[in-house]
Amino acid sequence: MKKRYRNGEVWDFEHEMVISGLGMGPEVILGLDGGTTSTVCVCIPIVPFTDHLPDPPPLLARAVAGCSNHNSVGETAARETLEQVMAEALSKSGSTRSAVRAVCLAVSGVNHPTDQQRILNWLSAIFPSHVQLFVENDAVAALASGTLGELHGCVLIAGTGTIAYGFTSDRRDARASGAGPILGDWGSGYGIAAQALTAVIRSHDGRGPHTSLVCRILQELDLISPDELIGWTYADPSWARIAALVPVVITCAEAGDQVANKILLDAVQELASSVKAVVRRLELCGKDGEEHFPLVMVGGILEANKRWDIGKEVIACISKDFPGVLPIRPKVEPAIGAALLAWNILMKQSRRDALRS
Amino acid sequence: MKKRYRNGEVWDFEHEMVISGLGMGPEVILGLDGGTTSTVCVCIPIVPFTDHLPDPPPLLARAVAGCSNHNSVGETAARETLEQVMAEALSKSGSTRSAVRAVCLAVSGVNHPTDQQRILNWLSAIFPSHVQLFVENDAVAALASGTLGELHGCVLIAGTGTIAYGFTSDRRDARASGAGPILGDWGSGYGIAAQALTAVIRSHDGRGPHTSLVCRILQELDLISPDELIGWTYADPSWARIAALVPVVITCAEAGDQVANKILLDAVQELASSVKAVVRRLELCGKDGEEHFPLVMVGGILEANKRWDIGKEVIACISKDFPGVLPIRPKVEPAIGAALLAWNILMKQSRRDALRS
Repeated sequence: MKKRYRNGEVWDFEHEMVISGLGMGPEVILGLDGGTTSTVCVCIPIVPFTDHLPDPPPLLARAVAGCSNHNSVGETAARETLEQVMAEALSKSGSTRSAVRAVCLAVSGVNHPTDQQRILNWLSAIFPSHVQLFVENDAVAALASGTLGELHGCVLIAGTGTIAYGFTSDRRDARASGAGPILGDWGSGYGIAAQALTAVIRSHDGRGPHTSLVCRILQELDLISPDELIGWTYADPSWARIAALVPVVITCAEAGDQVANKILLDAVQELASSVKAVVRRLELCGKDGEEHFPLVMVGGILEANKRWDIGKEVIACISKDFPGVLPIRPKVEPAIGAALLAWNILMKQSRRDALRS
Repeated sequence: MKKRYRNGEVWDFEHEMVISGLGMGPEVILGLDGGTTSTVCVCIPIVPFTDHLPDPPPLLARAVAGCSNHNSVGETAARETLEQVMAEALSKSGSTRSAVRAVCLAVSGVNHPTDQQRILNWLSAIFPSHVQLFVENDAVAALASGTLGELHGCVLIAGTGTIAYGFTSDRRDARASGAGPILGDWGSGYGIAAQALTAVIRSHDGRGPHTSLVCRILQELDLISPDELIGWTYADPSWARIAALVPVVITCAEAGDQVANKILLDAVQELASSVKAVVRRLELCGKDGEEHFPLVMVGGILEANKRWDIGKEVIACISKDFPGVLPIRPKVEPAIGAALLAWNILMKQSRRDALRS
């Protein structure tokens, strides 16, 4: 059971710290990555603003909580989760809110400036007024996790769902996909698995060719007949449950199954097409189409843990149109990306201030 | 508000009929078509068993009620609805249960012999023991509505969903599609509309070509930007709400839009492929592939009310492989099909009995 706090109680640890003379450490930044599955908050110290960050970036504390997507759990529950996970990370790091210089909160479900403003208003009631606050879509944290805080380039996320999100250096943005399965996120884990389930039904009822997916998927789900798949899908339409079948599709494709192979090749085209749409709209490749730009690749579908390497194929497909693509597989998690994003902005401000004085 | 009856009260009208000397009319058959949207019950008189039915078939009474799919509303509510609609039809026809010779109940959600047996047990507690009871999937009633009670050939239903269902004269059956949108019912109204919505998003985010579907669909839904479609689809995932956009797709295709046209052509291939799979598996076209077989076409998607005539194109596509296809657009509703199915069985029994005596 999650502990419930009354208003503000979550920050009680700060009194004890002040009394015991603790909480006098370095200034810190909080970075949050809030998704539908979990929420991660990290606390990093503000290291001297040199041109290059230490690698790996310093980390004082890390805390994990549940879902903080306001569309899924409602605004009150989402805020409670966010406040608790921030308090936990700060408390673990031995800091209080007065040590915080910036908070960068990247949560899924933030799509409009109005979402952003609402969360900013709420955050500003929690932190002292000098704290700099940033609220972004969680795809932005994923991008920053690959570019170490620099907001430039494109990120491709492919897990249960998929989205491509890009920024120019002057902060124009564009996205493709990320609209859910009804609206055609076909390269996602859900999309791949739904195609495989469809192939099973089609093979069974005579519309489609024979495929080893039939045996393998029934085995995986402990079902006897493809007819039972109908009941299985209706019983729980959760996308993640369906997306969990992707490894079966990869196994079949690696064993030479043509149908499974075609599904993965189509997914590669779909994922590449999302990135290409963003790159074209933002002209990330420059006017001549040859300029370099970072492409951050995130999510289970893009991980290079198989012989049939979806991520590698996606890059190959993008390179044909945009040879300047620089693929990056982040070494840090998105929450650190969020913190580095804030760190980057603070660093630029401090440089500007230094030039002025 | 639906009137609630206590156990058996729904049949109280029978006492009054007996007292007033009514209810001495002809023997009757009840035919029911129970779907997710509505349930129809018709009462037809048993006309002398000649070889040919009067056209149109005689009709004593008709009653309509709500959903009777047990998967949607639960078993108790489904049974209440079925019992009430049967009582209403009988009462309207001036008959009592003792006049009933047969009941044919065709309801969606009946997919296994166990479903069938459960409903048969329940029905046999309502009617006198001499009443013949038949329980079928609702696609069977749709087939019988085109073949006037003969259970032979294939039916293609394409409304919000789609299914192809076929029978040989010796009652072997086969189906294709009908597994829901996750499992690839792509030629359905839902399938067509979901493809159109996807085309709007793809055009908007740069993955797909320009299409007039963007303007037309936003206009239809009273939205300003394609981004708002995401919220629109999440707000209510009902398939019928999405399928209602099919007329917009047809209008765009008729006006020459290539994307809309491609979506409809793909749907035609999908629908034809379901029928072809059933015809092949049951060898409805005979060993040489040239034999005639009826194809009953049912549902809004197949209605010939537009210049872009999906039903006509589906038939053309099937004819290429199976020139013996005999398309039928039923002139009576599925509930009458259900009644005629029972009529047909009774007729065959009476012929056999006549031969024996």
